[in-house]
Amino acid sequence: MQQLETYLASRKQKHAYQYALWLLSWDQETETPDASLQYRSDQIEVLSTLLYEVEMSDARIEAIDYLALHPETLTKELQVEIKHVKKELDHLRKIPKQEYIDFQVLLSQAGHIWSQAKQNNDFAAYLPTLEKVITFQKKMVKYLQTDTIKGYDVLLDLYEPGMTVVDYDHFFNTLKTDLVPFALKASKVVQKAPRKLTKGHFPKAQQIEFNTYLLDVFKYNTKKGVLKQSAHPFTSGVVSVDTRITTAYHEDDVRSAIFSTIHEMGHAIYEQQVNPAFDYTELKGGVSMGIHESQSRFYENMIGRSPAFWDVHFDKLVSTFPKALKGVTKDEFVRYINQVKRDYIRVEADELTYSLHVMVRYEIEKMLFNGKLKAKDLPKVWNRLYRQYLGLTPKTDTQGVLQDIHWAFGSFGYFPTYALGSAISAQIYHKMNQDLDIEAVVRANDIAQINQWLKTNIHQYGKLIEPKDLILKATQEPFNPQYYVRYLIDKYSRILGIEA
Amino acid sequence: MQQLETYLASRKQKHAYQYALWLLSWDQETETPDASLQYRSDQIEVLSTLLYEVEMSDARIEAIDYLALHPETLTKELQVEIKHVKKELDHLRKIPKQEYIDFQVLLSQAGHIWSQAKQNNDFAAYLPTLEKVITFQKKMVKYLQTDTIKGYDVLLDLYEPGMTVVDYDHFFNTLKTDLVPFALKASKVVQKAPRKLTKGHFPKAQQIEFNTYLLDVFKYNTKKGVLKQSAHPFTSGVVSVDTRITTAYHEDDVRSAIFSTIHEMGHAIYEQQVNPAFDYTELKGGVSMGIHESQSRFYENMIGRSPAFWDVHFDKLVSTFPKALKGVTKDEFVRYINQVKRDYIRVEADELTYSLHVMVRYEIEKMLFNGKLKAKDLPKVWNRLYRQYLGLTPKTDTQGVLQDIHWAFGSFGYFPTYALGSAISAQIYHKMNQDLDIEAVVRANDIAQINQWLKTNIHQYGKLIEPKDLILKATQEPFNPQYYVRYLIDKYSRILGIEA
Repeated sequence: MQQLETYLASRKQKHAYQYALWLLSWDQETETPDASLQYRSDQIEVLSTLLYEVEMSDARIEAIDYLALHPETLTKELQVEIKHVKKELDHLRKIPKQEYIDFQVLLSQAGHIWSQAKQNNDFAAYLPTLEKVITFQKKMVKYLQTDTIKGYDVLLDLYEPGMTVVDYDHFFNTLKTDLVPFALKASKVVQKAPRKLTKGHFPKAQQIEFNTYLLDVFKYNTKKGVLKQSAHPFTSGVVSVDTRITTAYHEDDVRSAIFSTIHEMGHAIYEQQVNPAFDYTELKGGVSMGIHESQSRFYENMIGRSPAFWDVHFDKLVSTFPKALKGVTKDEFVRYINQVKRDYIRVEADELTYSLHVMVRYEIEKMLFNGKLKAKDLPKVWNRLYRQYLGLTPKTDTQGVLQDIHWAFGSFGYFPTYALGSAISAQIYHKMNQDLDIEAVVRANDIAQINQWLKTNIHQYGKLIEPKDLILKATQEPFNPQYYVRYLIDKYSRILGIEA
Repeated sequence: MQQLETYLASRKQKHAYQYALWLLSWDQETETPDASLQYRSDQIEVLSTLLYEVEMSDARIEAIDYLALHPETLTKELQVEIKHVKKELDHLRKIPKQEYIDFQVLLSQAGHIWSQAKQNNDFAAYLPTLEKVITFQKKMVKYLQTDTIKGYDVLLDLYEPGMTVVDYDHFFNTLKTDLVPFALKASKVVQKAPRKLTKGHFPKAQQIEFNTYLLDVFKYNTKKGVLKQSAHPFTSGVVSVDTRITTAYHEDDVRSAIFSTIHEMGHAIYEQQVNPAFDYTELKGGVSMGIHESQSRFYENMIGRSPAFWDVHFDKLVSTFPKALKGVTKDEFVRYINQVKRDYIRVEADELTYSLHVMVRYEIEKMLFNGKLKAKDLPKVWNRLYRQYLGLTPKTDTQGVLQDIHWAFGSFGYFPTYALGSAISAQIYHKMNQDLDIEAVVRANDIAQINQWLKTNIHQYGKLIEPKDLILKATQEPFNPQYYVRYLIDKYSRILGIEA
């Protein structure tokens, strides 16, 4: 009992520090005046150090080790929680402290070096830093690997517990054989959008009005969150009762803010609907990156980009932008927001080709960590894979291998969860559609029903159920990428009027 | 040297906690979603406890006591800082811990009880709580008093170091003899404002535009702060590089947001202009409530309500509200924003009568603490004093003794600083006007010159110089309420066209 009390007391302090650091980060992205950045960064350093001292205190470590060995004394929820924190703790213990600190220092500089290199299309300037990051990641893999999880799997497991190279290979191979040929064909269809859409001007004030309207359409709970603006849209959740989102308005593109807002609402509704009793535990929040992305993509693509959705909301859109959208038809708009276009840039990719961008990164990471690829050869391999899967060759490294920040942050193993999330969302859609007529629900503007289904089957559990088990429980079968391929081919063959 | 290092290390942690708590408070007033209030309050409790532990750690206390006894080892700035923290520490040490905690619990309930009583015009419901608060305040006076500071002076000194009953009596007696007769006469002048002003509609979007324009006019540094909205306007500063303000927009009153914004900019420009080297010390921020209020009132009344100011900015105001202000003249507007009206409510009082409201509260507090008044007799005495100084009798306790929250918060000794600040601002105006032609500077829309004067003579010093010394240094003479009386009589005899 005393060990449990020690653990709970340390958790209370840990959460208070995390809450303060969370708010500092939210404020920094949305409001902090420029001149205060140095002062703020000094305070963050102090608070982070205090948090680290709490997390790594001898008494807490002893308590966690003890409780992990004596789960029978704990509730079911606490057993899961202790398993999570024990895993985190073991990771921290396995990495020598000085190496960990050196790596954090390296990362704190790498982002800036990457950004300069991208701006100057200068891969060579980035290479030495990238090599150091990879070297550390390889060392980390060695420190963290166990009898059952080895090599690149160690990194994959950090972002999506339970997923391995075997699983991802199966997934991406399915895409390669079943989706790539269709995507290449689809991207060749000529898709023209009205000039009013592609060259229009959409004033920010009206965009704010429409995006605020969307909060209500999706029943994003504004008693548990806010919508604000930032340079890049993001969701910032700390507990179910405080999960905030941002969007970014671009006056030359009416789509951008709309689909960012819906995407972030997907992330946020997930966290808002976690069992509120978990707020004070480590079971709060989403369970993995893949499950999280499955929710954001579900709302963004499967609801937000569906023709049924715009059957209900297109009139409101037109009345919000009466001048800019005069004469544009609903069908033109739906085709516009579902345009397929081979592109060099992942973050600008459409729904159909998005996962193929991710596949390139997955294959590269796999080769880096099984020794088949050296960092210096990255541009060459990157371009070859883009040619192979997307049918185009980047003209510069800036629009090629330098486009993403993730590797500079040491986030190897993260990319695959983006594609995985999209694929999971299709499987969820399939199952949900057996319980609800999703299109009819969307046409009835009753998305609360969809939220309720997701709450019951996924959201409420927070981190209580591991991702693979959660998929099984929610959809009654293990992850199956065929739903995703079928969904995409079905949707785009209809929209583009081509054969599957 | 080791004691100094101990102290500096504790200061670093203290500032990090204070920064987190400051941001939590700012966020709570401007953005926090409702449902998170309980969770947030739990985190605040943890962080406050951690802060208390840092502040009251044996090592820190020992270090402060040591350094206070050995000032010769310290820089001049650190000597002042240690004097400040020693004073705070002594206060905390003199009050028995349990009594202090009991009082905090009482205060945490008193606000709500006051609010209910005010709403229901039920002084009797509030009386038992108020009596308890006063009883504690009297005990606190006993704990804190020294050979030189006794009785009510102990409370006055908490908000305005160095000010005593003798000083305030001199100040308020001057108002009583030299200002009250004029104010009563002035308030009888019939002052009509155009219906366009009193019954107009001023859309929020345009108000935001005009208030944003004012930020630039006053050179509020938006690299060191932001303007946001909240239920009640306030300034929230933590260091010179992060001093934020809010305003509140009322669509039926164009004045409200304008003068709130200018008032809060006065507070904020003060803190923004403190020597930035003080950001990491206890010398940051303003030195006292009175000096702070002198800055906000200076900007709000002496600049913002001056005819010269509207010579420059009235056209912009009209062009922002072309419909609402069509046909209104600049002179009508200047008279409107300087209307004199006897009122029951302090926060709605005009510049001329404002200090008389404060005088009522000062006299009452003085009597409460020298034993000449019991809490149960407050309504009777309140109404008598309003009749005497403002020539009117409140019809209910809601518009009388129940109107302010301060006493429920235990803030006895605070009110007088409001009037003191206004009076100090007149003395500053007089001195500044010898160095600059203020009206000409305002007409040239060059308020940066005024900011610079205040920075050089007042702001830069932060808490380095005690209030009384600061006034002496900045104006070359001790505080003298005659400047205030003369300023008011001069201004209002001109505006109202009556004799002084």
